Amino acid sequence: MPSQLQDAMGALITVFYNYSGNDGDKHKLNKGELKELLNSELKEFLASQKDPMLVEKIMNDLDSNKDNEVDFNEFVVLVAALTVACNDFFQEQNKMAN
Amino acid sequence: MPSQLQDAMGALITVFYNYSGNDGDKHKLNKGELKELLNSELKEFLASQKDPMLVEKIMNDLDSNKDNEVDFNEFVVLVAALTVACNDFFQEQNKMAN
Repeated sequence: MPSQLQDAMGALITVFYNYSGNDGDKHKLNKGELKELLNSELKEFLASQKDPMLVEKIMNDLDSNKDNEVDFNEFVVLVAALTVACNDFFQEQNKMAN
Repeated sequence: MPSQLQDAMGALITVFYNYSGNDGDKHKLNKGELKELLNSELKEFLASQKDPMLVEKIMNDLDSNKDNEVDFNEFVVLVAALTVACNDFFQEQNKMAN
């Protein structure tokens, strides 16, 4: 049986391909696919941001090889950064509560 | 309801604290805790590696601030690298099958 960590790693791969497969290169997210992934999977995060250029900015930041698409390696960088940010947030909350 | 991606991000945080809380600094994995995490969560990965110094090497690689402990940010780097490696493996398998 896969461990909780293996399940989580598998889920990251599954989520990426759920969106990257929709059109064009099936192993990469274009801007539309990235937007759909962010809207569906991280709705609250996007809703809390007021910047209308946010998806463009995320795309530019992630697309380290500048091919206007986000591959899996680039996507994992986003997930890692967001997870670290969530963890920092909860640590702060925890400190304030104690 | 959390999305699949949010669940996966939450699972990474949960797994880390399941092991980091055992002794010493509750927000960091010492060598024993890292070994326990790898043995329990990534058993097959460890079993396939023959190097008896593997845990020490992973510890040294991850511990970017050289405090002999792995914090959450350092842990996420390991998970990201392993997930990218898994994804590359499946893409290769896929290419060979087609």
